[in-house]
Amino acid sequence: AVVEALAGLFRPGCLAGLSVLVSAGPTREAIDPVRFLSNRSSGKMGYAVARAAAAAGARVTLVSGPTALSPPAVAEFVAVESAADMYQAVMARAASHDIYIGTAAVADYAPEYAAAGKIKKTAGELTLTLRKTRDILAAVAALPDKPYTVGFAAETDDLEGYARAKLAAKNLDMVAANWVGEGKAFEQDDNALEVFWPGGRRTLPTASKAVLAGRLIDLIAERYGARAAV
Amino acid sequence: AVVEALAGLFRPGCLAGLSVLVSAGPTREAIDPVRFLSNRSSGKMGYAVARAAAAAGARVTLVSGPTALSPPAVAEFVAVESAADMYQAVMARAASHDIYIGTAAVADYAPEYAAAGKIKKTAGELTLTLRKTRDILAAVAALPDKPYTVGFAAETDDLEGYARAKLAAKNLDMVAANWVGEGKAFEQDDNALEVFWPGGRRTLPTASKAVLAGRLIDLIAERYGARAAV
Repeated sequence: AVVEALAGLFRPGCLAGLSVLVSAGPTREAIDPVRFLSNRSSGKMGYAVARAAAAAGARVTLVSGPTALSPPAVAEFVAVESAADMYQAVMARAASHDIYIGTAAVADYAPEYAAAGKIKKTAGELTLTLRKTRDILAAVAALPDKPYTVGFAAETDDLEGYARAKLAAKNLDMVAANWVGEGKAFEQDDNALEVFWPGGRRTLPTASKAVLAGRLIDLIAERYGARAAV
Repeated sequence: AVVEALAGLFRPGCLAGLSVLVSAGPTREAIDPVRFLSNRSSGKMGYAVARAAAAAGARVTLVSGPTALSPPAVAEFVAVESAADMYQAVMARAASHDIYIGTAAVADYAPEYAAAGKIKKTAGELTLTLRKTRDILAAVAALPDKPYTVGFAAETDDLEGYARAKLAAKNLDMVAANWVGEGKAFEQDDNALEVFWPGGRRTLPTASKAVLAGRLIDLIAERYGARAAV
């Protein structure tokens, strides 16, 4: 309700008539039937972005990894588990959306295979070979009819350097970056973002994820409009 | 409320005057500031066991890894994250309790060290070296003044074989075993248990985790009493 109110205050209906695909949450990569690799994403930022986009008038599809959150009221909610699941769910939908906002903390490495039975703890040491997963953001941005593509970056150092490199390397339209580690961002209710696009940047200062999501949606609508006007 | 009612029906106050230490949930083993290894334990069974023990009149301490559950009303609730944290929290309390019920799905392997900064995804392949964590159940059962020690076993095959081996190898007083994989037990609301102790066994058939926890507490009270009477 807070998001709706704030987003409404800033730019009523700034995404009216547009469709927005949001990915959110962590993914889980199975090691065996019980063990998995994951990360500290709570999904809160992504769910807040999906809510803010819906409040701004967009038709929203949310593809989400496992979280403890209740699904928001969006046009379509797709629950996935692994990075491979998320890749398929996003790629099946990306070209039919105007904007893709990849907030998910997709596992970038996954075990090369998952054991069918529970691995017994016999050896004192165990070596796990991980393979890089497919890059969903880059794959969306490489589509012939690509949506306006927004990536997220969570970094522990050199925020701008990594964000600008990601923007260029993956051919993204925007990167929203934030610091992680030492209680910052992941699993927290507050966050701050440094947003970069080709030729520009804006700081969205610390606020609740709901308020911040509204400001990010405003900025995306503004930049999407500027691009469309070129 | 269901547990309280049922536990009350079966054996009112069967643990009155006793103290019970319960460990529950998964643990998380940091790979770097954002990535971790974990497992599919929801903590539901352990929380249900803690509630049932409290309803049976025990003074209950619950040591829990990260879950999405609200802490139950117990005498002491201790939140931990890693297997090493849980080892310390349990070992600091075990000798002062009459009964220890280790329901936690403690990670048995953890990265040999956690990276201070987020690992960049440069290499196509990444090798993670995991070391066996310290065995909390075995350490509790090896205490000179050990509590009555109940372990859990989650297996994908040969349930009795593994459970009996665990009972003997770790010098436990009881092992409650269940099947995992293919939607069984982990993250589910229903469960069934095969309970083994030296010279005996009992099947606790499929029921809600709340009802099953009440039946397990009854059985622990019965066996604890039998041991004390010897």
